[in-house]
Amino acid sequence: MPPKTPIPGVNHLIAIGSGKGGVGKTTVSVNLAIALAGLGYRVGLMDADVYGPNVPLMMGINATPRALGERIQPLENYGVRLMSMGFLNPGDKPLVWRGPMLHNVIQQFLRNVDWGELDYLIIDLPPGTGDVQLSLIQTAPITGAVVVTTPSDVSLEDARKAVNMFDQVRVPILGIVENMSYLVCPHCAERIDVFSHGGGRRTAEMMKVHFLDEVPLAPEVRVGGDTGKPVATRGADDPQAYVFIQMAKKLVDRAREVSGATTGPAFTVED
Amino acid sequence: MPPKTPIPGVNHLIAIGSGKGGVGKTTVSVNLAIALAGLGYRVGLMDADVYGPNVPLMMGINATPRALGERIQPLENYGVRLMSMGFLNPGDKPLVWRGPMLHNVIQQFLRNVDWGELDYLIIDLPPGTGDVQLSLIQTAPITGAVVVTTPSDVSLEDARKAVNMFDQVRVPILGIVENMSYLVCPHCAERIDVFSHGGGRRTAEMMKVHFLDEVPLAPEVRVGGDTGKPVATRGADDPQAYVFIQMAKKLVDRAREVSGATTGPAFTVED
Repeated sequence: MPPKTPIPGVNHLIAIGSGKGGVGKTTVSVNLAIALAGLGYRVGLMDADVYGPNVPLMMGINATPRALGERIQPLENYGVRLMSMGFLNPGDKPLVWRGPMLHNVIQQFLRNVDWGELDYLIIDLPPGTGDVQLSLIQTAPITGAVVVTTPSDVSLEDARKAVNMFDQVRVPILGIVENMSYLVCPHCAERIDVFSHGGGRRTAEMMKVHFLDEVPLAPEVRVGGDTGKPVATRGADDPQAYVFIQMAKKLVDRAREVSGATTGPAFTVED
Repeated sequence: MPPKTPIPGVNHLIAIGSGKGGVGKTTVSVNLAIALAGLGYRVGLMDADVYGPNVPLMMGINATPRALGERIQPLENYGVRLMSMGFLNPGDKPLVWRGPMLHNVIQQFLRNVDWGELDYLIIDLPPGTGDVQLSLIQTAPITGAVVVTTPSDVSLEDARKAVNMFDQVRVPILGIVENMSYLVCPHCAERIDVFSHGGGRRTAEMMKVHFLDEVPLAPEVRVGGDTGKPVATRGADDPQAYVFIQMAKKLVDRAREVSGATTGPAFTVED
């Protein structure tokens, strides 16, 4: 295995993964990044889903990044520095690259982007446990991973695979997030467990990993993503934003715990 | 490009793809396959999603397929012959294979499985436009592809990429399916457009491809998948099953149209 070279200036690398696609991994990544920035941290978000990069749409920004010498300048919105294949390949043209080319792009996103000083670099992984995920995890000094799932058995089946993948390559699990946890009917205010409920927490207990939080299936969250104004931008008075702000605080605690555990019991200086 | 060798005994190969994961591609594949079998066709379902194979769970069957000489015997449930990596790698161990190994597995699933005589072999592709999809599409004589999407802009963005991918490699689009189209509240019977609505049809019109159908976000459909009894098994009196039976009929028509168009205007003998 190649050595895990640190990324100068970046304190914590947080990978957001999922076994299955469409569970809201990018929604969680985007809102966590914005919530962390709102808490005063310096945050970057790297969209490693090179085939279906949805970060530009969700973050409401799309432009061609400038190069300064050999370094690519990240874009920025809502206080978060951003890099995505969507900035380099806008429009509807599919990328049908094979593994080795992807590996190069990911490495460039990590190493050749001028991230500057960051407390957290959030990496939105592609779904699954394939080439791209493996290359990245093997070469980047990742503090820990968040695994996103819905409560459906089909999604949980794949989430367990993702937890085991991180485990195999010794990346600590910061926690499981249960997304689309339940829906509150906007007409009658009754609760609907569209994709079932509670499987995220049960899976976390079963696999002896932390459970971070459940995120309700709120149409506002989807609209926020589709319109480039994620709910986390609304601040703590908004109930949907509040969920992500709380999750961001737990993430900070978990990242601290996990780094403490791996670097020894001594105190660590943050910021 | 290598020549597209026919698969002896298999009349139509139908690829079910999506740009984004978690849009219900496997749900649509499984229910379409069962509905086609219910209409009297001989049907196979090949789960090409080797990283997150959900077909065994959804089809309610998991066993180790037997080999007969050099040929792997497919399993069968609900009148559908089945092959999935989930049968060969059961449990929660993730596969972290790289591209070339996947290519081999897919080829074996296509060529070394004893599919027998089939009217339709449905291929549940992995989401996205990567290695596996490209290898498969380049080597298999696919009659046409179905692209599954939800109505959310994020999903439609990736669906357009999938349509363009099939277009680039000259696989005809049989149609777009809008899944999770809307939810009818089980408490107040009001309709909720959880992931927006109508974008599948609009995208089909814009891209000048057929629109097959919309599938409501019905908790029964998800429960059917999670419990291994897909709704299509319930027969035409069930409203959710009815949706898939109608879709299967349209698919048959489209496959006929598309084959007629590519082999010339002469009549074709089916069965």
